[in-house]
Order: sequence, then C-alpha cells, then structure tokens
Amino acid sequence: MITDNIIGFQLSSVSDRFIYATDPATMTTLPDAFAVATAEETDLAVEKAFKAWRIYRNSTGAQRAAFLNEIANGIEALGSELVTRIMQETAYPEARVIVERTRTCTQLRMFAHEAEHGQWNELTVDVALPDRSPSPRPELRKRMMAVGPVVVFGASNFPLAYSTAGGDVASALAVGCPVIVKAHDSHLGTNALVAEVIMQAARKTGMPDGVFSSLVGDGLSTGIQLVQHPLIAAVGFTGSLKGGRALFDLGQQRPNPIPVFAEMGSVNPVFVLPGRIQEDTKSLAAQLANSMTMTSGQFCTKPGILVALEDHHTQQLINEIKSALEKVPEASLLNEGIFRSFNAGVSEVKASHGVRIIQDFHSSGDLRTAPVLATVSADIFLSNPRLHHEVFGPYSILVLCRDLTTLQAVASSLEGQLTASIMATAEELKETHMLVELLMEKAGRIIFNGVPTGVEVCAAMTHGGPYPASTDIRFTAVGQHAVYRWLRPVTLQNFPQD
Amino acid sequence: MITDNIIGFQLSSVSDRFIYATDPATMTTLPDAFAVATAEETDLAVEKAFKAWRIYRNSTGAQRAAFLNEIANGIEALGSELVTRIMQETAYPEARVIVERTRTCTQLRMFAHEAEHGQWNELTVDVALPDRSPSPRPELRKRMMAVGPVVVFGASNFPLAYSTAGGDVASALAVGCPVIVKAHDSHLGTNALVAEVIMQAARKTGMPDGVFSSLVGDGLSTGIQLVQHPLIAAVGFTGSLKGGRALFDLGQQRPNPIPVFAEMGSVNPVFVLPGRIQEDTKSLAAQLANSMTMTSGQFCTKPGILVALEDHHTQQLINEIKSALEKVPEASLLNEGIFRSFNAGVSEVKASHGVRIIQDFHSSGDLRTAPVLATVSADIFLSNPRLHHEVFGPYSILVLCRDLTTLQAVASSLEGQLTASIMATAEELKETHMLVELLMEKAGRIIFNGVPTGVEVCAAMTHGGPYPASTDIRFTAVGQHAVYRWLRPVTLQNFPQD
Repeated sequence: MITDNIIGFQLSSVSDRFIYATDPATMTTLPDAFAVATAEETDLAVEKAFKAWRIYRNSTGAQRAAFLNEIANGIEALGSELVTRIMQETAYPEARVIVERTRTCTQLRMFAHEAEHGQWNELTVDVALPDRSPSPRPELRKRMMAVGPVVVFGASNFPLAYSTAGGDVASALAVGCPVIVKAHDSHLGTNALVAEVIMQAARKTGMPDGVFSSLVGDGLSTGIQLVQHPLIAAVGFTGSLKGGRALFDLGQQRPNPIPVFAEMGSVNPVFVLPGRIQEDTKSLAAQLANSMTMTSGQFCTKPGILVALEDHHTQQLINEIKSALEKVPEASLLNEGIFRSFNAGVSEVKASHGVRIIQDFHSSGDLRTAPVLATVSADIFLSNPRLHHEVFGPYSILVLCRDLTTLQAVASSLEGQLTASIMATAEELKETHMLVELLMEKAGRIIFNGVPTGVEVCAAMTHGGPYPASTDIRFTAVGQHAVYRWLRPVTLQNFPQD
Repeated sequence: MITDNIIGFQLSSVSDRFIYATDPATMTTLPDAFAVATAEETDLAVEKAFKAWRIYRNSTGAQRAAFLNEIANGIEALGSELVTRIMQETAYPEARVIVERTRTCTQLRMFAHEAEHGQWNELTVDVALPDRSPSPRPELRKRMMAVGPVVVFGASNFPLAYSTAGGDVASALAVGCPVIVKAHDSHLGTNALVAEVIMQAARKTGMPDGVFSSLVGDGLSTGIQLVQHPLIAAVGFTGSLKGGRALFDLGQQRPNPIPVFAEMGSVNPVFVLPGRIQEDTKSLAAQLANSMTMTSGQFCTKPGILVALEDHHTQQLINEIKSALEKVPEASLLNEGIFRSFNAGVSEVKASHGVRIIQDFHSSGDLRTAPVLATVSADIFLSNPRLHHEVFGPYSILVLCRDLTTLQAVASSLEGQLTASIMATAEELKETHMLVELLMEKAGRIIFNGVPTGVEVCAAMTHGGPYPASTDIRFTAVGQHAVYRWLRPVTLQNFPQD
C-alpha cells in the first residue's frame, strides 16, 4: 500500500509527521503510517492540477471515459484487499462494502458514459443573421467548459461511493476538471488503495500529470489551504453541517469566491398518515425501522424525524417499530467522533422536557450502539429547535400531532432537507395536497410510500436541497446532472467553424 | 406618476422621508417626491411575495406569458411619457432610449415564450423498474421549481433593460418567482412608471397580490434588509464591484445562504494583432472608438483595455483612434457618483508612472465628459494592478507589447471578464490558439473580429464570467438560460401520475 501523498504521477512524503487509521470495531490503531502533506506538497498538487486542467479540459469525452472506466476496472481488480481494508476502517459488514463497491463502479461507468454522450456536451448555437436590421447578428456558439481544479472532501460513511473515486470525483473528472482529494482521516488505507488505482489509470490512459492527487492532512490546515488556493476553482464536500459550512464560508470569503457544493445535514422527515398505518402496521414498522438502522443509521438520508397523528393507530405503529428495533444487533459506529456526537445528541434529547424514550441504548465502552427511538408531542417539538437537529446514527424521534393542521405546522417548522416522505393511502395523498406543496419548499426529493434511504443514481435524482441540506439549492450531488456543478458556459462569437 | 411604494396591489407611503431624482444634464433636482419605504413596508413586501410564491409558482406557463406580454404592451403604451422621463433621468439621447425600450420589450416577450415553451420546463423521468435485482427502482420524476421571492437591484446604465422590468425581473417572473425591485436612486421616475405598468399587468392577468413590489430606499438599509430577510430566496444585481460584492457577502453570511447573482466590473480586453490593423486601420479604429464611447462608455462591455504589439502599425492605429475620439462630442454621465468615479479613475491613471495620455478631457464643472485614451508599456501595466481596474465611462488604455509572448503575459495577468476580443486575420487566429485558450479561462464570451458592446439577447449568449465579472461563473444574466439562476430541481419519487 502506498502511504505517501500522491501528487500527480509522483509519490511524495517530505514531512516527518504521520497519521494512522483506526479499526472502530476494536478501537485499535492500524499499522500503516501515512505521511502528512506539507504546505509545499499541497501547493505542488494544486499547481500540477492547474497545468493539467489546460490539457485535460480539451481531452475528448472518449478519452475521459476510458480513464473513468479504467478506474472502475482497477477498483474491482483490487478484490478482497480493498474489501478487507474497508471493513477494517469502517466496521461495516462485508455485504454492505460490496454493495458500495458495486455502486461506486456503476457510478464511474455512468459518468464515463456522461463524459462522452452527456447532454452537457450539446452546443447552443444562434446562427448569424447578416441581413438583420438595424444591425446584423453575429453567430454565437455556447458550450460548457470545465471550471478548473476541484477539491473533494469525502464522506465518512461512504469510503468508496462518496470518497476518493466517488460521485464528486467521477463527475468532475468526467467533464474535464482535475481533482485533488483530501483523504478522509477515517479511511486512509482505503483512500491509498483507490488513489493508487486512479493514478495508474491516469497513466495507462494517457491523462496529464496532475489530473489527480491525493493528500493526507493533519487537522484542518491542508483543507483550508486547498480551499483558499487561488488556482482552485470549486469544492465538493459531503459531511457535517459544521464542516460543510466552514468550507463554504472559506470559499465565499476568498478574494475571488468559488462554488462550494457541500451536502450536509438532513433529518429526512417521514409523515405517516393513519390510513397507511391501518393498511399494514407491521410491514410499515419494519420498513421504517430498517431505514432508520441500516448501516447503523449512518446515512445522510436516514429518517431522523417521523410525524404522525396521536391516535391508537400510531401507538400500534410505535409498538411495532419498538419490536423491530429490539431485534437490531448492536454495531460499531464509524469512528470515535461520530460515536461521541451520537451519544451527545441522544443525551440531549433524553434530557429535553417532554421527550419519552421508547427504545434506549447504553454504551458498553466501545463504539457499538443500538437504535434509539423517542416520541414527543408536536407542541414541545415546535418549541424546541434542538429536537429538529440531525443526530447521525441509529436514532429517530416520532412527533405526535393532535390533527392534520398541527402536522402541517410541524412540516412548516422544519429546515431544508435532502428528502421528505409521505406514507399515505392514495385517498389521503389527494387530501393532503398542501402538505406535499409544503414539503416541496423544504426538500429536494419528495417520496410517496417509500423510505428516504436508497438513493438511486440516475438523471431524475435530486440529492441536495434547501440549506442546511446543501449549500447550493440549484444542483444535485448524485446522478448525471451532478456534472453541472463543475461546468460553466463559454460563448464564442463570430469564430470560424474550425 | 405614482410616488408611493408599490407593495403588491397596494400603494404605500407611511414614512415622512422622501427622495428625488436628478437631471444629470442640468444637475437640477426633479420635482417628484418619492416616499422612502420603512422597515415595516419592506417586511410587508417580502411577506406578500412569499405568499404569492405559493400560488404563482403553480401558475401555468401560459398565464405567466400573458403577464409578461402585458408588461411589454404596457411599457410601449406609456409612449413619450416614459421616453421623456428616461431622458431626464439619464441624459441619454432619444435614439438610445428607444433602442433600450425595444430591447426591453423584446426581452419580456422572449421570456414570455420561455415561460411557456422553455427547455427548463422539461421533466427528467427515470421509469420504475419493478423487476430490477437486487432491489426494484421506483419511478423518479424531476422538474424545475421556482426558488422563491427574488430581490432585484437594477443597473444605473440600463433604466429599462436591466432594471424594473429588465432581464433579471423578466427571467424570474417567467419561471414563477415573485420579484421585489429596489428602485435605482438615479431613475426613480422611470421605475415608478414601469412599476405601475407591472402592477396593472398583474391585476389584469389575474396574478396573485405580491407577485411584484417596488420599494424606494434611502441609502443602503432597504437593500440590506431585503437581502437578509429569511423569506428571500435569491438576489439579482447589476452594477459596481463594490456594491455587488457587498450584497454577495450579505447573502452568503446569512444563517441560510442564498444565491446572489451579481454582474459587476469588467474591462473587456481587446487584443489587436498586426495583420488585422494592416487590413484596414481606419475602419478598425472607428469600430474601437465607437465601442469605447457609445453611451459615453457607460456599458459593462465597454472595451477598457486594448492590447497590441509596439510597432508602427499600432502607432498608426492609435493616431486613427485619436482622430475618431476627437470627433466625439462631450456628453453627461449618468449621475454625480459615476462622474466622480470617472474623474478619480482617470486622474489615478494620469498620475501613474509610465502612462502616456493620447487624448485627454478637462471637466467644465458639470457632469459632461469627453473620451480619454492612454497608452502604457506592457512591463509597467504588468507591474501596476491599478491599471487593470475598470474605469466606468469613455476611457481606454492601450497596452504596448514587445512581442506575442508579452501579449500572452498581459492576457494571463487579467482578472475575470465578461468578454475578451481578438482582432486578427484568419491566419493570425490559427497561430494564436494559446491566446484563445487563455481568454477562455478569463472570460464568459470570446469575440473574434468584433467589439464587446452589443450584447445579443439569445440562448447562446453568456453574459457573466469569472470573478469579478460575476459572482457565479455557472450562470448567464442575459438570454433564455438566465432563468436557471432562479430555479432548483425537485424530484418526486413513486408519486401517482396525477
């Protein structure tokens, strides 16, 4: 495994500072020592990326497609070495890792296709009108152009699909932007394996030196230096509200502000109407409990808030969810920071006035957790904004409403979301048109009779939403249209056809 | 003329503070007293806009088209009353005003068509795959949705086409965003006439109360309050770098940041190669002098910097430009602030080491100016960033380069631009491929053998560019695609077809 920084085609390790990954299941430090990038190495990566941009942005779609496909092939070829390392660094079960690997390679191949055949390639042309009065019109041709070198900060919970060769990186590479990845501290080994694959793929397919770099940082300074570097053109981030907002602010406060697309917190409210509960309480409860606890609730689309009427149907639903949650085995969270935040969040909820704990969890000293379910009345929920915040991990709170008006008031009170769901009969849906309208104001994706987890990678996906779900409401982080974050229009006026 | 604030369908004037417009030609105050909006009136306009958004965003394209067409008809119906008032408030000649009126109405009708038939209306659909393994795919439908109430700050130099019923307003209204216009202090009467037309058009075509408001401010407080208001979703601005950056910063520093699209400064460099000069020095000089001085150089696309080789061809070009400039009559600038900035900018250039003044101007105590042309060597230009700044008004500086490498160094040194132009023979263009590539990094629109003034309103237009030309490189302020600034995607997953 390469434990150096990868700066274009160069391995580099000039500092004497090293950091290590941790196995969250055993809370032990893994042996590989990863060299921390110096300020000079970071500058070098940016300068190489900028030079590479001048070549790479003019590569053909077919060339970039070959590069991306080669990365997918390389990731698959790593086989069990990669799977084992991811399991070590995340405590994810093997099946979860393999699903993510499939998704990552599918995404890379989708963006390879997009590089070559995507709609963004289409020219907009206004033909010359030499005889127009009072003045002729010149020909204008508009095309999309790569914005420049992009910095990507990967997600803790998707060591592959939103990290070193994840959606942000693949979409930026697809349209001609070189990428510098700041490796996530929690999966340094996974990053090293994948970054080496990307470097080899770049060499093999004839990409320019600097089209990809991977840097290891110690604390925040490498990330700050990257976002503030004058030659960096855009930033992609997936993670916490605190981290995303800090990077966004850095990007906007630059002498020349740049786009910072951060996909951040979301509680993904699920509105459960009584008719739907009556149809099949048990399977609905199983569906919700599963969405809430899969991968220990460490999804940005985990349903963190359920909203229902306060009646005996809902009471039955709560009982069934509790039964389902009791069967969920304890599992380790991704790292100590996430575990501490989860504990702090749950403790704060428990200490809040009027909250009832339905299913609880007691720490056994390691990073393992079991699911937590709470209920609260709408009145108390509406008066306590802290109950609206995301608690990352297997936790949900069910808000009990006295009537549909109160349920709508709860919807109105929510911040921006990645998703909002309605569980209802077809009849109920027709009667709650106003609720759907409200949720469209609040979220990027509205789901009918489905759970928010399971984000399809397709053109019709919107993964993003009003702040704090993301920092720019006009773009999606998932699906083919994610490329538009890294593109800008350029018009050529009156140029010869060649 | 209505001298109250227009808040939806309501006229409102509760404060006892009034401001007045000035005739720049005579430097006299015009008689109409315009009521300054109070903080309460400003809040009311935003609240009405937010309520209107819930209705207006679901109006049909045909309904919004009828509204926009009615505004165009209403502006035309104002006839000479509007033309006279604009001439009074801008000192523009009648022909200039009439051209702008035509452009404004053409734009409104173009966005009316866009409201109904624009590409942004197209759904992206991924069909359900119920038999997909390992898990079925639900149907996903993505559509574009109006972001919410938009605040528009109009331009000093386009009292119609970039102001109360200008491109920002028309593009936002076209896609379902209510608009609040902060009236420009320099054309309060023009704003009043046009705002009344919009209000009447909204009534006549059955638009909701609050779909449009027009507020008069005193100093900065009204604008700041609007940009910081939690219910405002986006901002459009055309004007100075200082003003645009201040609004951008306010928008990004909000608890929930919002898109602020500011179109700001640009010096629109024109690179003139020797072959092109030799072809026809005189007509080239006339073309450049005209672009530099039309509307007294008060265009955001005025060529502020010319770049050429230091040879006798260029010397001849300078002589011809000087002759052309000598024939340009003095004319009043738009207001005292612009006049002062022009004077200060020119004085700074004159006092700069190594600058030679070819054509000068001496103030006669009013707001009238004549064109100013300076030359400077590339070495001095490269070492003095102040010579790179925009001087709004009839001023250009010609940078003399010892060779093509130096010319490229000058291109590299420039900040982001709305446009960059190359005057060259077809042969020279082929040999300066690197220069074209460089200019594509720097500008939103690259022009071959044409001047930057004269911005076509069409789909292939890019009016915007790297900072400081605009605050978001990914959008254009002119042409059909300008609507994307005010739209966001929303995905409906698994919803019934109706």
